[in-house]
Amino acid sequence: MAQVAWIGLGVMGYPMAGHVLKNGFHNLTVYNRTQEKAQRWVFEFDAGALALNPAEAASRADFIFSCVGNDEDVRSVTTGPQGAFHTMRPGAIFIDTTTTSATLARELSKAAAEKGLHFIDAPVSGGQAGAQNGTLTVMCGGEETSFQKAKPIIKTFAREVVRIGPSGDGQLTKMVNQICVAGLIQALAEGLHFAKRAELDVEAVMKTISKGAAQSWQMENRWWSMMDNEFDFGFAVDLMRKDMAICLEESRRNGANLPVTALVDRFYGEVQSMGGNRWDTSSLIARLNALKSDEVLE
Amino acid sequence: MAQVAWIGLGVMGYPMAGHVLKNGFHNLTVYNRTQEKAQRWVFEFDAGALALNPAEAASRADFIFSCVGNDEDVRSVTTGPQGAFHTMRPGAIFIDTTTTSATLARELSKAAAEKGLHFIDAPVSGGQAGAQNGTLTVMCGGEETSFQKAKPIIKTFAREVVRIGPSGDGQLTKMVNQICVAGLIQALAEGLHFAKRAELDVEAVMKTISKGAAQSWQMENRWWSMMDNEFDFGFAVDLMRKDMAICLEESRRNGANLPVTALVDRFYGEVQSMGGNRWDTSSLIARLNALKSDEVLE
Repeated sequence: MAQVAWIGLGVMGYPMAGHVLKNGFHNLTVYNRTQEKAQRWVFEFDAGALALNPAEAASRADFIFSCVGNDEDVRSVTTGPQGAFHTMRPGAIFIDTTTTSATLARELSKAAAEKGLHFIDAPVSGGQAGAQNGTLTVMCGGEETSFQKAKPIIKTFAREVVRIGPSGDGQLTKMVNQICVAGLIQALAEGLHFAKRAELDVEAVMKTISKGAAQSWQMENRWWSMMDNEFDFGFAVDLMRKDMAICLEESRRNGANLPVTALVDRFYGEVQSMGGNRWDTSSLIARLNALKSDEVLE
Repeated sequence: MAQVAWIGLGVMGYPMAGHVLKNGFHNLTVYNRTQEKAQRWVFEFDAGALALNPAEAASRADFIFSCVGNDEDVRSVTTGPQGAFHTMRPGAIFIDTTTTSATLARELSKAAAEKGLHFIDAPVSGGQAGAQNGTLTVMCGGEETSFQKAKPIIKTFAREVVRIGPSGDGQLTKMVNQICVAGLIQALAEGLHFAKRAELDVEAVMKTISKGAAQSWQMENRWWSMMDNEFDFGFAVDLMRKDMAICLEESRRNGANLPVTALVDRFYGEVQSMGGNRWDTSSLIARLNALKSDEVLE
């Protein structure tokens, strides 16, 4: 049975690591920066070993997963002073489920290869609910052979696991996802905000137009919570802004033009100013509703 | 059997009137500004009578449909010198399927009521294909009783026929639809454009992310034609700009904030400058692809 290590037990990593354990990978070692969380995890799942740092967690593992905050955190748990790359056994595979820059993914893939190790970028979509239910979508970049070896373990917390291409392509795919989502939510928010100001029967409107060209997952799953100003769930604006920053930085590198993405990123900044740091991304409508008519600046 | 008149046999009206005839409403009189088209229609469907003007078409009808270009055209065929309102019989119902301002719909509803007539605003979505296949969505505003009487005839060319509320609400619903569609297409265009510049396997990317929060009808039905720069079909940019103008004018009236809608309207203007007047609305990606990296102006 494969030995697995899991680094990072936040809102996403905590349940994801749980799915790995519950689906047959019992030789699991966990590490978390705040150690109490790792202790709680071992207690809750009544299994697994605790490690004091990423290097210790990785030393016994064939597969090492990370789910941390950002580029800097991933660098710290891999090539940092107590990082996993220093102790990983030859041929071991590191799978990073954090959303990071593609540049970092490529850099770590290269660093891994130089040590006879393997690295896969594997950001996820599906949010907290997807992590809890084990129904995430995982977008992977890296070598095909390493991907095939890691896939059965990734599958324990995912409905969809796809290798898009070489290192970095998982992260780039996640960026495409976030670009599509950001503008889509703003468009839906403008539609609902307009419907409200026009005093329409919004339920009848949504039922009718969601059959055609305006249909989207966001429309079907978020229109009612958006109308109810209910944002205490889902994917936080703070995290979305982190992702938007990665998208916009990458677009400066590859020359893509993202005018609406850039605008919506600013709008999310305004939602943060309204105190919406932890609100779901659908809270863009709160910003529209808060503006008075005479502040319309189009 | 109800007597029906149809005014306007353009790309939408031509097949729509055909569905009315073929589905049992044989007492049909048609009128079109360019008379040759009306003659062609009568010849093709081997039935129906020709009228020389809207007033003549309406004089014998219980239900009068119009499908023309814009507010001015609708005014012309209703209250204009040879308009239908002058000859309609008491209790007759006028159903306008043109996309117009809500203001016009309310104005004509009032003018109709003063003459003992009825008016329903009934703009459609589903495009040319929907008109040809009789699968349009029809969003209605007006009195419930008139709507119920007209519904069986509308149903001959529609999959969905819904009364949203009083006069004007059909038009306002169409505006909500167009607001949601415009920003959504731009978001998808930015995602695909980014994927292309990032040299991703776009088919793999779309297959993967269309399972989650980024999913939309546009993504599922348009991503491949957008990647192939294929825009010679669908709903023309010229018509979308007409609709956008109606949305933005109404938003100035009701105080709704539509920053992305306003921006995308400008982008459609740029597509027109590229010669894309007749291109499908998904051609927003052509504008992004045409920009050089150093023209990125976010």
